[in-house]
Amino acid sequence: MPVFLAEQLRNVGTKVFLAAGAPLDDAEWVSRLLVKANLVGHDSHGVIRVIQYVKAIQRGDINPDARTEIVKESRASALVNGNWGFGQVAARRAMEIAIRKAKENTCGTVCAYNCYHVGRLADYSLMAAESDMVGVVMANSVKNVAAYGGLDRVLSTGPLSYAFPTGGEAPFFLDIATSVVAEGKVRNTLHKGGKLPEGCIIDKNGNPSTNPADLYDGGALLPLGGDLFGYKGFGIGLVVEVLGGVLSNSGLTLMPGKKGNGLFFQAVDIESFMPVDEFKQQVTTLIQKVKSSRLRPGFTEILMPGEPEFRTEKERLKSGISVPDRTWEEIKTTAAALGLNVDSLI
Amino acid sequence: MPVFLAEQLRNVGTKVFLAAGAPLDDAEWVSRLLVKANLVGHDSHGVIRVIQYVKAIQRGDINPDARTEIVKESRASALVNGNWGFGQVAARRAMEIAIRKAKENTCGTVCAYNCYHVGRLADYSLMAAESDMVGVVMANSVKNVAAYGGLDRVLSTGPLSYAFPTGGEAPFFLDIATSVVAEGKVRNTLHKGGKLPEGCIIDKNGNPSTNPADLYDGGALLPLGGDLFGYKGFGIGLVVEVLGGVLSNSGLTLMPGKKGNGLFFQAVDIESFMPVDEFKQQVTTLIQKVKSSRLRPGFTEILMPGEPEFRTEKERLKSGISVPDRTWEEIKTTAAALGLNVDSLI
Repeated sequence: MPVFLAEQLRNVGTKVFLAAGAPLDDAEWVSRLLVKANLVGHDSHGVIRVIQYVKAIQRGDINPDARTEIVKESRASALVNGNWGFGQVAARRAMEIAIRKAKENTCGTVCAYNCYHVGRLADYSLMAAESDMVGVVMANSVKNVAAYGGLDRVLSTGPLSYAFPTGGEAPFFLDIATSVVAEGKVRNTLHKGGKLPEGCIIDKNGNPSTNPADLYDGGALLPLGGDLFGYKGFGIGLVVEVLGGVLSNSGLTLMPGKKGNGLFFQAVDIESFMPVDEFKQQVTTLIQKVKSSRLRPGFTEILMPGEPEFRTEKERLKSGISVPDRTWEEIKTTAAALGLNVDSLI
Repeated sequence: MPVFLAEQLRNVGTKVFLAAGAPLDDAEWVSRLLVKANLVGHDSHGVIRVIQYVKAIQRGDINPDARTEIVKESRASALVNGNWGFGQVAARRAMEIAIRKAKENTCGTVCAYNCYHVGRLADYSLMAAESDMVGVVMANSVKNVAAYGGLDRVLSTGPLSYAFPTGGEAPFFLDIATSVVAEGKVRNTLHKGGKLPEGCIIDKNGNPSTNPADLYDGGALLPLGGDLFGYKGFGIGLVVEVLGGVLSNSGLTLMPGKKGNGLFFQAVDIESFMPVDEFKQQVTTLIQKVKSSRLRPGFTEILMPGEPEFRTEKERLKSGISVPDRTWEEIKTTAAALGLNVDSLI
């Protein structure tokens, strides 16, 4: 399995997207986020997507040269049409607008539709945190998750992300699916030949299953909370669906032909409520006190949201990013079809 | 167990709070919300609280005549000091401000501190929904919940509520604790002499327990998601803590002497993104399609958030509200000490 520096992979991604028709700035941005996903340990959202995105461009699902368009705007809001460009490009623009509007109006709310895959939501909520604001992102997507008590897939995994500035080195961000697990986790388990923990999926008859193959044979993911308390995850999933899907003008996950991510972004200005330094100080106190809490048997540490990613990034910035042989071969083939020799780019 | 019409109980509550020093409008509002809680089936937040609130007034924890004060304000935000009046009074004012500001600025964000118990968060998120807006409420409170992997109580049950307008008769609202269960559920189970489902609490040594008494003997509630996925509920709980506790200027749940609810409110104007009628139509479609999903074995129906409450309310508006004998006796005693004869108020 070859190992690369982040910079090398970013260069490959950028050159491939450029060759596929993206403007330089967009190619660099999308490539940066994919490699960032590898750095923080979410390889399912990493450079493996280069292959998928180029195929999507060739199929016409992504217009690599699309311009993000503001179709409706008020002092503190915007509705953005991604025009089926890279989701990452529309999402960046949307959060930039939200942050700019929040500076003048406390809260900027921006919705976006006609967006291809946006990747990790934390990339955008953290933009707000880096501007000393609270960042919120919610997305709907393709249907994967059953209702609480239901058998059919009616919701997407309904990811949501919040980020806050902290006084410390590590950012505070949450980025979770509102299903028990994300689909990628089931796929990984399937590829590794393993079993899922109980309570993650049901099979096509609605019975609990630990066999990941059952998800792809008519099954569904379950909402967070399990058999007894799944109405909570289901409820949060519905909120994400309404904000990310309905309010965004993207359409319901359960409608035939639904594709891409529907998106809801907010940036909330902290200074409207308190000095940012005081906010950071209190968040730091919260983190320190929570982390120094006594441990339950079986646990060795209390981790804050975003902390595992932060650690993995520090480590992979030094040690490099391993890319599975098969993925690397496919990236080379993808690039070659665009007239690029990947080895010469490394 | 005596049974009363909602109107009778509202009258009792209003007269008691008036006699305890509240202005008429505030007394009526607090009483209305308590009885509403009984109507929708959340008796733990119902008229039983009349007793608690009068005691809190006598102890000086509630100033029944306090005026809610705006201490910081911008075009789209306000920071509200409840001055330790009834939480319900400050919360109504805060959401009213949020709605008014959202009409002009898409999103109104209001935080509130120095608030005694506010009751059910849905009462306020629904105010936004009734104004054709999205309503968001988050609150911190007293410490009850352990960190994921931790033993000490560091967070409150971190309730959050979202509400949306719908085209239909029933409102759409979510109002949940981000712990597996709320503290009231454990207390009820204790009083009934029952056992909790697995995964709700830990005992003072951090071991899983189904004995509700263990919560009150140094134990803690667990965050939503259980032993494997509790980092999700913990993460959402932290978000509620930061918005409801830090941004609200209320202080961290885990700090000594913390009391009352810290509050975060948002109203988001739908018209900034799409015609409200279209929004309602899509939400109605979502509800209909989700509810008509095929069922899993063991389930008889798919219920939307807020639907059980809506049904109970319809039924109790007809059949009346049963008040346990002991609660009713205590209400009578509480009223008598204020010079009121409850029987003459019914």
